[in-house]
Amino acid sequence: VLHFKLLGSAAGGGVPQWNCACPLCLGCRNGTHGFISRLQLQAAISCKPGSWFLINASPDLRCQIEGNSILQPSPRQGRRNTPIRGIILTSADLDQVLGVLLLREFQPLTLYATSVVRQVLESNSFFEMLTRIPNQLTWVEISPNVPFVLDDEITCTPISMAGSLPHYAKNLRIDGSKSRLANIGLIVESGTSRLAYTPSVPEITEELQAIYNSCEVIFVDGTFWSDTELNSTHAGTPLARAIGHIPMSGDKGMIASLSSVKGPHKIFVHINNTNPVLNQNSSEYKYVCEAGWQIGYDGWELK
Amino acid sequence: VLHFKLLGSAAGGGVPQWNCACPLCLGCRNGTHGFISRLQLQAAISCKPGSWFLINASPDLRCQIEGNSILQPSPRQGRRNTPIRGIILTSADLDQVLGVLLLREFQPLTLYATSVVRQVLESNSFFEMLTRIPNQLTWVEISPNVPFVLDDEITCTPISMAGSLPHYAKNLRIDGSKSRLANIGLIVESGTSRLAYTPSVPEITEELQAIYNSCEVIFVDGTFWSDTELNSTHAGTPLARAIGHIPMSGDKGMIASLSSVKGPHKIFVHINNTNPVLNQNSSEYKYVCEAGWQIGYDGWELK
Repeated sequence: VLHFKLLGSAAGGGVPQWNCACPLCLGCRNGTHGFISRLQLQAAISCKPGSWFLINASPDLRCQIEGNSILQPSPRQGRRNTPIRGIILTSADLDQVLGVLLLREFQPLTLYATSVVRQVLESNSFFEMLTRIPNQLTWVEISPNVPFVLDDEITCTPISMAGSLPHYAKNLRIDGSKSRLANIGLIVESGTSRLAYTPSVPEITEELQAIYNSCEVIFVDGTFWSDTELNSTHAGTPLARAIGHIPMSGDKGMIASLSSVKGPHKIFVHINNTNPVLNQNSSEYKYVCEAGWQIGYDGWELK
Repeated sequence: VLHFKLLGSAAGGGVPQWNCACPLCLGCRNGTHGFISRLQLQAAISCKPGSWFLINASPDLRCQIEGNSILQPSPRQGRRNTPIRGIILTSADLDQVLGVLLLREFQPLTLYATSVVRQVLESNSFFEMLTRIPNQLTWVEISPNVPFVLDDEITCTPISMAGSLPHYAKNLRIDGSKSRLANIGLIVESGTSRLAYTPSVPEITEELQAIYNSCEVIFVDGTFWSDTELNSTHAGTPLARAIGHIPMSGDKGMIASLSSVKGPHKIFVHINNTNPVLNQNSSEYKYVCEAGWQIGYDGWELK
């Protein structure tokens, strides 16, 4: 049986965000009713007790491990050990990869990533802290539409998403023809469970709609409510669509575009601290719920 | 008046550490009496309300900011703001710099670092996330024995420590003759307060002893109790001295070597999760206390 757990549900920065005094962040800091703090997006999957795979690695990962005993080492397995068998990376975005650098301490680690994501990460010398002893870091190359199996029972199939490498990689010499490897989604299947995990959705294709329709649960990019939300908070910052996120609202927004997807539980994740749905008393929150969506929260679980 | 606060006191990984099931980490996880959890080393200094400087930037920084209201933005200063006026880096060690990458979100940031530390960090493309808008990141070059002033009232003087760049930087083309810029300590002075902050001490010179003797409080590298402690926990890992840390114990250890330093409060920081002093019921803890030292803890404050 597939066990899926969300250990964080926010976009980069989390909620509250270190430099933000907006009503949403203040509501969280003050513990106001209807405002819930969120760590940065992190998911974990398992089909066997004591064996977990992470989907991405958030900057809050240390805290997420210490807050969830399922991810902690066991004294019955020796002094140093971990139930974390591997980490699947869906992009090279900092809020999805920085946590890998927290898993040092000479512990063997397996990373599943596309060749392009691997190239981007390895071009940062920080990653050499993961290759200090022989066999510390093992890379497994994954590719769109090529399934791979975890623990004999979980099948993951990468889906190529549109979109590009993160801003920080723009000056690296990475073969541009491989941009279909920059940002992937995942179909995760085990037994009769089938879910889709797509925290960054720059474009909704017919193929993606068909995938969503075939699933029991879908986790979908819920970064922004509107295209201008970030820009209107902080002048000089980009529009939502310019950084690869379809906003929730509007005629061509996520909710409207996926209104025909009726089978699965539809869950928004990677919620940015600017998104008004974070206030459960807001009209936007009400709208999302009435449209049949849930806002993911830290601790959400399927098992 | 100088206000100094420790927001974390552990070495890289913190206590408990994600992959460690030793009695010390288990004691912290179980809340056993005499065992105290510790975030990774982080200090903050101030001489004015609402204006803080960080010494280094730990990977736990998001959590350390949300846990300390003095570091949080004020709704009276607009939507996006921070009381963090700058960050002084004493090395390029990951457990001292990764937190800088958590302070993105288009917020202007000032980093004080030696030219060598700057070169190492900028060679990692991740740092380009801090230069997305004009004037986002400002570097201030600091050098051993050249004082610089913060907020008109705090004078910081870098001290060159022995030691080398972190392991991950070994293949970078950094001018080797500049290794005196790889690892520094800081003398922090304001009014009649004078303290030394030296989280990584590979060698005790007469000059360093004289500096310590001139201070009111000294924060000293307390990573390891013994030279073999890490290696005996995890085969294939280095000795304490080989990675730039004089252990606490032994004839040439920190406690013996600094026994003639009697004036200041002596506080060990950067305690590794393998160090037996973390158990307050241990003979090692008792020994340290009887020798006139304190073990730093999260929340330690001078004001």
